[in-house]
Amino acid sequence: MPDRFTQHRRVAFSETDLAGIVHFSNFYRYMEDCEHAFFRSLGESVDAMPDGEGGTVGWPRVSAECRFHRPLKFEDEFEAELLVERVGNKSLSYRIRFWGGEGRKLLAEGKVVAVCARLGGGAMRSVEIPARIREKIEEAPPELLAAPAESR
Amino acid sequence: MPDRFTQHRRVAFSETDLAGIVHFSNFYRYMEDCEHAFFRSLGESVDAMPDGEGGTVGWPRVSAECRFHRPLKFEDEFEAELLVERVGNKSLSYRIRFWGGEGRKLLAEGKVVAVCARLGGGAMRSVEIPARIREKIEEAPPELLAAPAESR
Amino acid sequence: MPDRFTQHRRVAFSETDLAGIVHFSNFYRYMEDCEHAFFRSLGESVDAMPDGEGGTVGWPRVSAECRFHRPLKFEDEFEAELLVERVGNKSLSYRIRFWGGEGRKLLAEGKVVAVCARLGGGAMRSVEIPARIREKIEEAPPELLAAPAESR
Amino acid sequence: MPDRFTQHRRVAFSETDLAGIVHFSNFYRYMEDCEHAFFRSLGESVDAMPDGEGGTVGWPRVSAECRFHRPLKFEDEFEAELLVERVGNKSLSYRIRFWGGEGRKLLAEGKVVAVCARLGGGAMRSVEIPARIREKIEEAPPELLAAPAESR
Repeated sequence: MPDRFTQHRRVAFSETDLAGIVHFSNFYRYMEDCEHAFFRSLGESVDAMPDGEGGTVGWPRVSAECRFHRPLKFEDEFEAELLVERVGNKSLSYRIRFWGGEGRKLLAEGKVVAVCARLGGGAMRSVEIPARIREKIEEAPPELLAAPAESR
Repeated sequence: MPDRFTQHRRVAFSETDLAGIVHFSNFYRYMEDCEHAFFRSLGESVDAMPDGEGGTVGWPRVSAECRFHRPLKFEDEFEAELLVERVGNKSLSYRIRFWGGEGRKLLAEGKVVAVCARLGGGAMRSVEIPARIREKIEEAPPELLAAPAESR
Repeated sequence: MPDRFTQHRRVAFSETDLAGIVHFSNFYRYMEDCEHAFFRSLGESVDAMPDGEGGTVGWPRVSAECRFHRPLKFEDEFEAELLVERVGNKSLSYRIRFWGGEGRKLLAEGKVVAVCARLGGGAMRSVEIPARIREKIEEAPPELLAAPAESR
Repeated sequence: MPDRFTQHRRVAFSETDLAGIVHFSNFYRYMEDCEHAFFRSLGESVDAMPDGEGGTVGWPRVSAECRFHRPLKFEDEFEAELLVERVGNKSLSYRIRFWGGEGRKLLAEGKVVAVCARLGGGAMRSVEIPARIREKIEEAPPELLAAPAESR
């Protein structure tokens, strides 16, 4: 059962700001993109994911944070590495690390908590993670989740 | 009946790119924002606008273009000026001019064509503009729509 | 000396996503915008802020986090309230709360840490906050920074 | 000498809006991305492209337009196909077509005009396209540039 996923990207011009580096808000988009690619690798789509009971669930964010170590510049290639940190009853926590540059250094590290929510009928309501999803993922080992080395 | 609308804005940091100026894609967002503020000034919202027959209409874009004359920089103040260019049976055309800088110069000029479309039930379908909307707007005079002076 | 700042906003169409709510990445842009408006209210611009010694400083982000309580929808009006959480030697920490909806409820709460960095000559280097800036701001009282009530 | 370039993409969640489709402003970003990938395929980068005389040139947009035929949805795969429409003395014109969906239909078609500009020393100034760049690209044949069939 997968507990991690890696996505390769390249910085787009429109993602940079006047400081000449990727605007920090784009790291949160990179994190979400990596999460969605992770689900696609499991044969799932976060848009209208069947809950196994005739309905669908989505994954609204509860919180998201990121710590920035080194900047990314236009056309830089980098990796977003997702680790499943916790599989709760109704939520999933991810840790996402960004690697790149000379010596493949740690550029940034983020954490996202998303809740499983039933869609439709107006307001969202948190529900248990569908068994099918739960069977497809597992938590990454604690030693991997511990503070990463500066480079890999 | 209004045929024009002016919105005042200031450039946000996240709208700039590594060239130190507003990324051109944001001008299309500015144009749309100005159109929506125009509708709000008429007591209307483009999101689920009642069609007068129990349904709602939206305004998907048919085309959008912009010509860039002078760049905008971080924290620059500017005006987006919308002129109603054409009220068709099923579509609206706008001309949007951006003014700013010393001497209030023309920064950019765009044109947007949006079609009135019935929402819901899957695919969108173009429909006649609701009479209520048609009664609220009119076309700007041709001399105003003609090529603008360099500054105002 | 100001220790807080409030900015009023309205959600733009382009800030929403297919779930019909503001995409979470935009909250980080809202936070930055509020910080920049705070500096403007002090007569300062974060772009090339004079350091008092002939150079300029900028404020790259060290970290940014946000916790999401209630969604924002298209055209919703809301307030971003910035509180200065800590004035360090070389860094500033802000807490930003988003208020809106019926009963003016807490929509989201974020925290941003930005470091004062000398610009130019290639790499950025963290430096002490210029005295002029330090004299213009102060930390908000602890009771204000403590967990906010659900509504105000 | 290349006169065209094709880029494969997939729609990201953050590129959608509340109408459930890609926000139209992102098509302009897709067009720029495709142009930059085209230059990379030629061994060039639009950021600080050497002009062969010790300086560098950039490619600010003169104008950009797009006509929207069919919407793109979350996770849709599509192709952006760039055709060099005109190689002027100081400017380049591209036509970009978006293909996708069942039967690989035409989703949208855009046109971008970019001017070759010398960077540095404050204001940009349009200059002749460096000979090295001119030798790497050529105009696509007129029959290809003519109105495209609905599907391919």
